[in-house]
Amino acid sequence: MHAADLIQSAIDRNRSIACVGLDPRPNLIPPTLVADSLHRLGDTAEAVADAFLTYNRGLIHAATNACAAVKLQLACYEAYGAPGYACFTETVKYARDRNVPVIADGKRNDIGSTAEHYAQAFLTAAPGLSGRALPGTGCDWLTVNPYLGADGITPFIDRHPSATGIFVLVRTSNASSGDIQDVALAAGGTVAERMARLVAGWASGRLGKSGLSSVGAVVGATHPAQAKNLRTLMPDCMFLVPGYGAQGGSAADALAGVRADGRGILVNSSRALLGAWQKPEYSGLNWKDAARAALDAMNKDLEAAGGVPARAADI
Amino acid sequence: MHAADLIQSAIDRNRSIACVGLDPRPNLIPPTLVADSLHRLGDTAEAVADAFLTYNRGLIHAATNACAAVKLQLACYEAYGAPGYACFTETVKYARDRNVPVIADGKRNDIGSTAEHYAQAFLTAAPGLSGRALPGTGCDWLTVNPYLGADGITPFIDRHPSATGIFVLVRTSNASSGDIQDVALAAGGTVAERMARLVAGWASGRLGKSGLSSVGAVVGATHPAQAKNLRTLMPDCMFLVPGYGAQGGSAADALAGVRADGRGILVNSSRALLGAWQKPEYSGLNWKDAARAALDAMNKDLEAAGGVPARAADI
Repeated sequence: MHAADLIQSAIDRNRSIACVGLDPRPNLIPPTLVADSLHRLGDTAEAVADAFLTYNRGLIHAATNACAAVKLQLACYEAYGAPGYACFTETVKYARDRNVPVIADGKRNDIGSTAEHYAQAFLTAAPGLSGRALPGTGCDWLTVNPYLGADGITPFIDRHPSATGIFVLVRTSNASSGDIQDVALAAGGTVAERMARLVAGWASGRLGKSGLSSVGAVVGATHPAQAKNLRTLMPDCMFLVPGYGAQGGSAADALAGVRADGRGILVNSSRALLGAWQKPEYSGLNWKDAARAALDAMNKDLEAAGGVPARAADI
Repeated sequence: MHAADLIQSAIDRNRSIACVGLDPRPNLIPPTLVADSLHRLGDTAEAVADAFLTYNRGLIHAATNACAAVKLQLACYEAYGAPGYACFTETVKYARDRNVPVIADGKRNDIGSTAEHYAQAFLTAAPGLSGRALPGTGCDWLTVNPYLGADGITPFIDRHPSATGIFVLVRTSNASSGDIQDVALAAGGTVAERMARLVAGWASGRLGKSGLSSVGAVVGATHPAQAKNLRTLMPDCMFLVPGYGAQGGSAADALAGVRADGRGILVNSSRALLGAWQKPEYSGLNWKDAARAALDAMNKDLEAAGGVPARAADI
């Protein structure tokens, strides 16, 4: 299925535009899981990866019919070397087996054949020593940093069908993103707007039945006025929206760039869901139910702000 | 030792400003190694990682006293999942055991605690489930993409001593880098120049005895006039220079940004060294000797262009 249709069909099926950020950290893992992994594997990277995997599986199980996608933050896994990487791969497999779309949040960037290797790592497959393709991790989408220009983007899209997609960083949610992204250009507009025009070009001609492209954009919830403007520049792009909740963006802010047809927004939340078991309001629940309760609250908040469109024709 | 002094002392010791790019790919591995790994491990990612590791060790052994550093392109390893990641870690260990400075070329980028996880993955150490630090991969430098602004840079430098460093992408060597990096700003100058001024600010106050900072910059050999200009903006930065050889940059181009004291340039080459055994001019040599011969030729070429300074006082 087309990568954008894959997410849109999960949105339609589950009535949710929420993306569950699987960004595990030791201090977010419930003590029972910590104790079990430490007991079996000692104070090792393998133990961390083991605890992360158990936690991720529980979260995915809890969220399967109430989210649009999961997003794995690569840094959280890479910090634990090869065992962390194996945990990443196993988590992706678990989600895909349950028909949950998977976004690898790696913000990868390089050129030519090197970018092609990143595409192999996350979206396609690398050649073995015999030249035959080996099994890949099989993510559906990858986040990509566009500072290198077209040479850093086309290897992710030109040799691959739209069954996989990329979200290109355009306007990030962090405070200092304006250091570069907001800088005014001699020709008018800002760096982020220039980037948006490039992204719109890459996105064109890659539309699925949903009317959305397999080239999307990262547009933070912390700049709602800019998101509205960026939508006019990138009409066909799914926006992956960080910055909701913890970073201060409201549901209305997160939805600022929504299309007229109600589509094109995917709102990420990580810590509020992963750390729900630590919050007083969910103290009566086990960690899986706490995460689901927090996700239900997020879906409700987004729905109240108009974030879940009336059911459209099936894709 | 200060990260810049570590490289400068290797430059002084080995009379070389060459950085050996360890970017292994199946089609660059000699047939004897391919056959051996396939025989023992089958057509798997483990076999690729096994062949890569043998090849890397041989190359490092051949280059130890004739280069300034090695640079590992993360994409080449990530393409083979957890086994590839383990090969990366083992290669880093082998180089460090031989006192060869190691640059992880990951072009990583994220903000806050997520950037901190990337720092843990490559430069420092991540906490285990008990909170105690686990052993890290222990690279000396990491390449970083600055599109997210200061929030994406400070986590790599503020919590860590200058024993590790970062090379920030400023002006890359690829053809389309101008899509963003050359764009003219309303306030004058280009995006790359704006980035250079930010990098100069991050670099200040982090100088080693070599007079170079633990914050360096990636400045491609394919834009020599810009490199000269960027040197005036970033006087204290080591320039990591891609684009020599294969991408068309000459030795003189690669050295365009050299400082008045002859320091501040590290020139990368990958394919010309890794694939030397495939070239007619080295057909009488085994793959290790072919790589060394190609490295010697590179050193000679750079020296003829004035690239190796007179021996300075020891650091």
